[in-house]
Formats: sequence, C-alpha cells, structure tokens
Amino acid sequence: MEKFNEIYETAISWTKEAGKNIKESLSEQLRVEYKTSEADLVTEKDREIEEFFIRKIKERYPNHHIIGEEGMGEDTSFNPREEIVWLIDPIDGTTSFVHQKENFAISVAVYENGSPRVGIIYDPIREECYHALHGYGAFKNKERLKTVRETTVKHSLLGIDSSWLVPNDQYDYRKFHSLIQDIRGTRVIGSAALEMAAVASGKLNGFISLRLSPWDFAAGLVLLGELGVKATTIDNKPINLFEKTSICVGNQTFHRQLMQEYLGEEDKSK
Amino acid sequence: MEKFNEIYETAISWTKEAGKNIKESLSEQLRVEYKTSEADLVTEKDREIEEFFIRKIKERYPNHHIIGEEGMGEDTSFNPREEIVWLIDPIDGTTSFVHQKENFAISVAVYENGSPRVGIIYDPIREECYHALHGYGAFKNKERLKTVRETTVKHSLLGIDSSWLVPNDQYDYRKFHSLIQDIRGTRVIGSAALEMAAVASGKLNGFISLRLSPWDFAAGLVLLGELGVKATTIDNKPINLFEKTSICVGNQTFHRQLMQEYLGEEDKSK
Repeated sequence: MEKFNEIYETAISWTKEAGKNIKESLSEQLRVEYKTSEADLVTEKDREIEEFFIRKIKERYPNHHIIGEEGMGEDTSFNPREEIVWLIDPIDGTTSFVHQKENFAISVAVYENGSPRVGIIYDPIREECYHALHGYGAFKNKERLKTVRETTVKHSLLGIDSSWLVPNDQYDYRKFHSLIQDIRGTRVIGSAALEMAAVASGKLNGFISLRLSPWDFAAGLVLLGELGVKATTIDNKPINLFEKTSICVGNQTFHRQLMQEYLGEEDKSK
Repeated sequence: MEKFNEIYETAISWTKEAGKNIKESLSEQLRVEYKTSEADLVTEKDREIEEFFIRKIKERYPNHHIIGEEGMGEDTSFNPREEIVWLIDPIDGTTSFVHQKENFAISVAVYENGSPRVGIIYDPIREECYHALHGYGAFKNKERLKTVRETTVKHSLLGIDSSWLVPNDQYDYRKFHSLIQDIRGTRVIGSAALEMAAVASGKLNGFISLRLSPWDFAAGLVLLGELGVKATTIDNKPINLFEKTSICVGNQTFHRQLMQEYLGEEDKSK
C-alpha cells in the first residue's frame, strides 16, 4: 500500500486545489453578474477541472489511466480491470452547482485491477473532504468516521431522488411505495457523491439511484467499503464498476430488510 | 411600524440566543455519547426553547399571545385575528435534528390582527439567519435578498417531500407525476422552514407541503411576502394562517404554470 499512500495524499491535494478554483470562480461569477450563462459556466468548469486532473496525472503517473465524465481521458485501448485507473467527476451535482452554488462535489477515485484503493469526495463550498485509503479507514477532514450504525427501515433516512418515485424508464416506481410510506424519511441533496458521503458520515442510512455512471459512485464505494456498508445494484447483484448501473447502499440491516421485505430481491451479490 | 422595529430586533436576538443554546447542547450531547436518548433530547430541547420564548415574551410584551408547537403557550380564549400573536417552532425538522444534527431551524413569526409583521428562520448550525420586517424587505444575515427570479417548471427546483409522491391520506399522489417528470429537479432538506428560506434565497423556486401547522410556515410566509412569491394552498386558495393546511409557494410564473398546467387548479386566492 506504500505506493497508494503517496497517490492518496497527492490526490487529496489536487482535489482541494481544484475545489478552491471552483469556489473562487463562483464568487467571480457572482461579481460579473452572469455575463456568461450558467450552463456555459458549468460546462467550462467541468472541462477545465477534468483537464487539470488529466494534466497532473499524466505528468506524475504516466502509466495510469483515466475515466472521466467529460470523456477527455477516454481511451478504450486499455482494460480497466488490469490497470490503475482514476475515475473523476469534476462537478457531481451540476444542477445544484448552477441553481444553488452549493450541494455539489468533486469525486475522485483510484482503482487497481478493479479493486478500490483511494476515494475522495470534496464539497468545496462547505470545505468538507471525505477521503479513504483502502484498508486504513475513512475520514471527514481529520475526523475518523465510525462503522455505520445498523438501522431498520422504520428508523432510517434514505437518499432517493423523486424521479424514481414517478413513472420512469428504469424501474417500476410502484415498488417503492410501501418503502417510502414506512421509512422515517427521505432526503435529496442533488449530488450522488454527497449522498454517498452522507451515508458514510451517518447522516443518511442508505442511498438509492437507478442510473449512475462509474465516476459518480466510484469514490463513494471506496469510502463506504471502509465503513461496513453493503453496496449492490437495485436487484441485489454485485455492482459492475465500469458500467452505468443502479446503486443501492446502506447498513447491513437496512439493506437486507429493504431488499427482502420491500423489493423482494434475494441476495445475488456473492 | 416603529413598534415592530423594536420587536423585530428583539426577536432576532432571542432567536440567536436560542440557536446558540441548541448548538451547544448538540456538542454536549456528542461529548456525553448519547447518555440520554435522541428522542428525549429533541423533546426536552423543544420544550426548553419554547419555554424560553414564552418567558421572554410574557416579561417584555405581556399583552402579546403565543401559538407554539409544544402548545405551552396555548390559550384558546383569544382571537388571533384581533391580537398580536407570536407563532413559534423551537425546532423545525426534528428528524433532521436527531439524525443529522443539522438541517433544522428555529422559526419565529409575529402577526398583528392576522397580518404579517416579523418573520425569522434561523439555522443555528450554519449560522444562517433569514429575517424580514414587513415592508422593509427580507435578509439572509446582513445580505438583502432580491425579489425571486421568474422560472418555468422546466427550469425550476422544487422542495417536495417524497411522502406526497406515494399513496397518502392528503392528496392524490398521481397528480404530481407529470410535474416531477418535467421539472428540473426536486430537493428535500427535511425542514419546511428551511425549504421556505431556500425559496427566499433563490436556491429553490418553489415548495409544496400537504400538511403543515401554523408555526411551521408563519415565518416563511412573512419572508416570501417581501420577495414577490405567490403562496396558496395546494388547491390554489388563500392560506388560513391559524389552521393546519397545505402550502404551495413559488415565483409567479412557476406557481401559475404549476397550478394551471399540472394540477388543473384555477386561481381561487382572490
């Protein structure tokens, strides 16, 4: 792990530098009173931050590979299961970024031969950095996070977007009815990375999304893997890290009850 | 308004004092490692903060009346439409308080003969105080808030709890389907007061709840009234301030489109 310790420290430092850049450009944007459109701002920033990471990675770790939202690091000539791969979402939660200037995050993960090594989720507005090096625990800034609490559905808060609770092209929305009726409550932050970070810090007990890309959830999975959280697809199968997929994460008790009693899915994750 | 200017300043100062108390007791709670149960903590704090306000109000404004969540100021011998009334929610968002130690607020409003005078929503964790004196504009801390932006449904973020999107005893949940499919996005903070404050600051463009009590929304309505926001019940009727009610607030464009094109309700608010 010696090698990844250095990569871990470096990745955190790059992520914070990128976050500072985003935060400053938001203040700048406020000063220039929307001279450029909000949509332009987010596209431009997304590209700029991804380019920043690509430049840094290529310079320092020339044999590493990159999978990013903007696709600039895209290179289909390698097998991600046999390489060291960075999965990067420069701005996870672009609607929140544009509308709220908060509730978005930078998500950075490093995997080796398909196994988790480093996960970082950084909220540059609140200056909250969630980070983990596989095998060494997960942290929020300098605070070590505890293994998550076990909770039943009745005592749980779940992150789930409203779009999955109305007719949609991914899943039968009616399967969520009794869950939402029984659960303590639901929350929507508007960034999958931050919602997974909220599960890590115990502010949510679970999170469901029916369509995420690898760079949306890769860092979250590294964090949650350090904290005893169960992570599967919505039909209780193992997650394929390198494909678009559904995600259902939560403490063991919550995840089991959710799957067995509410979604009727036996465990196919082994 | 001279009279209410003094009440306004005093109410803000009391609210911040109460918020400091709550924030400190959360750190204390963390130190004693859940010696008392979380449910006890919230009940106890709710009562303590309401008692604090009642004591202060009775001492300084002996002829004012109080309507609060804990009901300790309850006194059915007066007509709230002919008096100066304080509507107080000591902790709005109790589930968030217990589970997250954030995303809750103190909500304090003063009405005179049923008309808005003072509204305060204070998030003691983020130290964000939203406040308004009727006729003098609304503020977030020292920043004057602007009249809200006009937005169509396609470009709007709406605060709406998931419990209204599944079968429930208040409303036909299916009436929300096309709205949720068309809208830019939804968010759930877990405190109606903070969700109304988010509409005030432009982070949300609208907010719907199908069952709120007067102390939950009274302060929010004072703030939103200063910012050009339309506020009605879910069937587009005027809100009765002193009863449990549904609430639908948003900028004029959003509210009109929502009511006409999505809920099929003509304007009955006049």
